[in-house]
Amino acid sequence: MATYLITGASRGIGLSLVALLASFPSSQVGKVFATARQDNSPKLREIIKQHPGRIQFVKLDVTDNETLKQATAQVERDLHGKGLDILINNAGVMPWTPGGVTSMDDLGEVFNVNVTSVHNITRAFLPLLRKGKTKKIVNISGNYMHLLTPAYKITKAALNMLTMQYALEHGKDGFIFIAVSPGWLKTELGGEAADLPVEVGARATLNIVHNKTEKDNGKFFNIHVEGWEQKEGPNQYNGAELPW
Amino acid sequence: MATYLITGASRGIGLSLVALLASFPSSQVGKVFATARQDNSPKLREIIKQHPGRIQFVKLDVTDNETLKQATAQVERDLHGKGLDILINNAGVMPWTPGGVTSMDDLGEVFNVNVTSVHNITRAFLPLLRKGKTKKIVNISGNYMHLLTPAYKITKAALNMLTMQYALEHGKDGFIFIAVSPGWLKTELGGEAADLPVEVGARATLNIVHNKTEKDNGKFFNIHVEGWEQKEGPNQYNGAELPW
Repeated sequence: MATYLITGASRGIGLSLVALLASFPSSQVGKVFATARQDNSPKLREIIKQHPGRIQFVKLDVTDNETLKQATAQVERDLHGKGLDILINNAGVMPWTPGGVTSMDDLGEVFNVNVTSVHNITRAFLPLLRKGKTKKIVNISGNYMHLLTPAYKITKAALNMLTMQYALEHGKDGFIFIAVSPGWLKTELGGEAADLPVEVGARATLNIVHNKTEKDNGKFFNIHVEGWEQKEGPNQYNGAELPW
Repeated sequence: MATYLITGASRGIGLSLVALLASFPSSQVGKVFATARQDNSPKLREIIKQHPGRIQFVKLDVTDNETLKQATAQVERDLHGKGLDILINNAGVMPWTPGGVTSMDDLGEVFNVNVTSVHNITRAFLPLLRKGKTKKIVNISGNYMHLLTPAYKITKAALNMLTMQYALEHGKDGFIFIAVSPGWLKTELGGEAADLPVEVGARATLNIVHNKTEKDNGKFFNIHVEGWEQKEGPNQYNGAELPW
């Protein structure tokens, strides 16, 4: 009965991961902390309502250290002395830069959300994760090669290296840090032209979360989706390790 | 007779690159713009004094867009209608984080210097580079794996991806964007325990700057130093392409 915390849970793959975890028997999936900036997602509220006490909202603006402090305290209190088993750093942004890299003006802000925040959240929850059984931290990354999302790609390369640094430093203590590319999903962020329904990406991502072990610490994985193994390019969803 | 601009030229490999370029005959190396935050480097002043009109100081704080605007205007004026041939983005920081990644508190600032500034400088000089003969932009990166410089490694991974984005977007116009790992050099930044004298790293870096062509656009290169080709790990200075 593992405990989870998922950031960016009000929509997209974050919401879908929470819905999927809620569907597991409580013998397998214990408390799930779903964080978002605002408690204003009708779908997340509905899931929480249907699973009272098990799925729990935590207010967290990932760029605001004050709400992070409050969120950490709330989660610690609600775990009643137990540890946090799995942290999924999912919150992130992928702004569109129609003019290409030369016109990119938001690199610092995107880095703050996609990398610095993951760093701050990870170290804030490290003491609770240390008390957890699986000590697993999963950073949602990506390997899109679209020309018009340069800030996304640059910051995700940095996120992968951040994951690697944590893995090198904390692997010896039994922690497992991995990065996952969840595929190009039909979400607000991914758009309608995307490859996969968000539920498919969420399920494939959760498979990785659950199946990877200490030997995988520090690695970056693609999802595996049946029927997509033989494609070429970034949508070859074959479950393989990806280059950093 | 190529023209150059080198950032971070008051010390370390930046200074050494300027000294090396100054030693070339003026038939090969034309005007060299050496930028730094302050005109307070005795060694740089001495080089400038010995090569009046050829090596030129340009005040530039890479994190300050106002000085960048002034620097661009100064360089344009001093090129008298000619283009800038080679831009070497060398300015950068490598802070030491004795407590390891968990204690890292300067990630945003280091990103601003090592990545956002390179982006801002590159696009500011792009019109002058477009008028240049070689259209070459070289970003000084690194592949150190020391545990105690996490912010450096994370931001250099991002810098490499930034280089790639520029290469993809501007390669068709004849631009050549490459990243170079200049080796572990005995500079203030590298320390006395480093592998190579700074002059050796500067010469090897300049070889890459001069020898790479359009087919190398978007690649990341290690320096080549005789006698170091057979080493193992990050100090195998064999001139090979490095993984991103």
